[in-house]
Amino acid sequence: MTYCIGVMLDEGLIFASDSRTHAGVDDVAKFCKMTAFERRGDRVIVLLSSGNLAGTQAVIGVLNQRCAAGSPTPNLWSASTLFEVAMLVGDAMRDIERRDAAYLEKNEVGFNASFIVGGQIIGEPVRLFRIYAEGNFIEAGIDTPYFQTGETKYGKPIIDRVITRATTLAEAAKCVLVSFDSTMRSNLSVGMPIDLLCYVRNSLEVRRRRRFEEGDRYFTALSLDWSEGTRRVFRALPELHW
Amino acid sequence: MTYCIGVMLDEGLIFASDSRTHAGVDDVAKFCKMTAFERRGDRVIVLLSSGNLAGTQAVIGVLNQRCAAGSPTPNLWSASTLFEVAMLVGDAMRDIERRDAAYLEKNEVGFNASFIVGGQIIGEPVRLFRIYAEGNFIEAGIDTPYFQTGETKYGKPIIDRVITRATTLAEAAKCVLVSFDSTMRSNLSVGMPIDLLCYVRNSLEVRRRRRFEEGDRYFTALSLDWSEGTRRVFRALPELHW
Repeated sequence: MTYCIGVMLDEGLIFASDSRTHAGVDDVAKFCKMTAFERRGDRVIVLLSSGNLAGTQAVIGVLNQRCAAGSPTPNLWSASTLFEVAMLVGDAMRDIERRDAAYLEKNEVGFNASFIVGGQIIGEPVRLFRIYAEGNFIEAGIDTPYFQTGETKYGKPIIDRVITRATTLAEAAKCVLVSFDSTMRSNLSVGMPIDLLCYVRNSLEVRRRRRFEEGDRYFTALSLDWSEGTRRVFRALPELHW
Repeated sequence: MTYCIGVMLDEGLIFASDSRTHAGVDDVAKFCKMTAFERRGDRVIVLLSSGNLAGTQAVIGVLNQRCAAGSPTPNLWSASTLFEVAMLVGDAMRDIERRDAAYLEKNEVGFNASFIVGGQIIGEPVRLFRIYAEGNFIEAGIDTPYFQTGETKYGKPIIDRVITRATTLAEAAKCVLVSFDSTMRSNLSVGMPIDLLCYVRNSLEVRRRRRFEEGDRYFTALSLDWSEGTRRVFRALPELHW
């Protein structure tokens, strides 16, 4: 399993992903699920991958290959809008699906990659997309400022309670980390390290990216403060009179 | 969908269930999913139902019928332990499954009833069981003091953070209601009214049972206080230094 989230705020974007992959409980590994394409002053594009690792790595591989200098194929450096980027990611997914699907079906494995893609290209506002396994996609709007993939449910209530478009990047980053904490407590298939990237609107560069390893001091303090804080809120809730 | 939870504490038991049933989003109705069998001074048995309503009602119907005065069949009044009760519920489920399954399969509907069953019979401690659709079951122990059925994920983190065996009934009742609030915000197929029953260990009677209708004053206040409280906790969380 996986947990990824992308959040679109007035101030910019937050991306976060866990790093656990597993093929059964006896085959657990760590892989970074966050990929950033950055050309300072021109574009920042961030991809968060969910699903079968061979599939998602292949898609990133194809996207990278098409970005190679002098490539005539439309690619993430030549795209002039994030909408084009989303289409290019969908195209790469379909190419890999075409290549692999028949072989996977023999063993009843599906091609189940999916992505959260967002960022900013010069001349455009920040944008955020969720790309389904089929290669089609939706874009975040005013009403729904975030997308999740993977094990989304445990960490959703806290996001719904705290985050609106007006939430600051700093507060949203904390909220996203608490959402990961809640998810990891309930689902062993989501695990540290957590990759967190915070994009400031119109900066057109990645200034803040951080990895939280197991035992990270800040994350541990946050988790503890949150646990104690919520217990304190409980104790203060009005008594139920039967 | 449904959300039911049973919690076993040092002080007693908490049971709660939502009331929404639906066959598609255009066929939504309210049905109580909580059934209590009470003989004061002798036993309190509470059942929470999840799954196909025709199935769960049929199981409760069979259990009731077997309880009828003078019935020679072992039943919920004649059982001398909660373990026997869990077996009787499993038997009733299998009887209904035997009767209905072949007919349901024709339309690709499964018999998917499941139950949380708990309470106390004189001479025994309080006990809590989760009965699977197949009629087999597990009992709550020291390490896992609660069972959930239905849409369990959204409301789980808050239960995990707050409830231990030592939690008071009053605090656990509030926590369970917050867990319902979180679930209902995220899943439309779980809805009010909420039935809440609080059983005090060794009381051998139901002293506290309450239904929370849409707009219930206490529930609304609780929900608001919780939202505001958690936002306050957020604001006080340590700042992340990149």
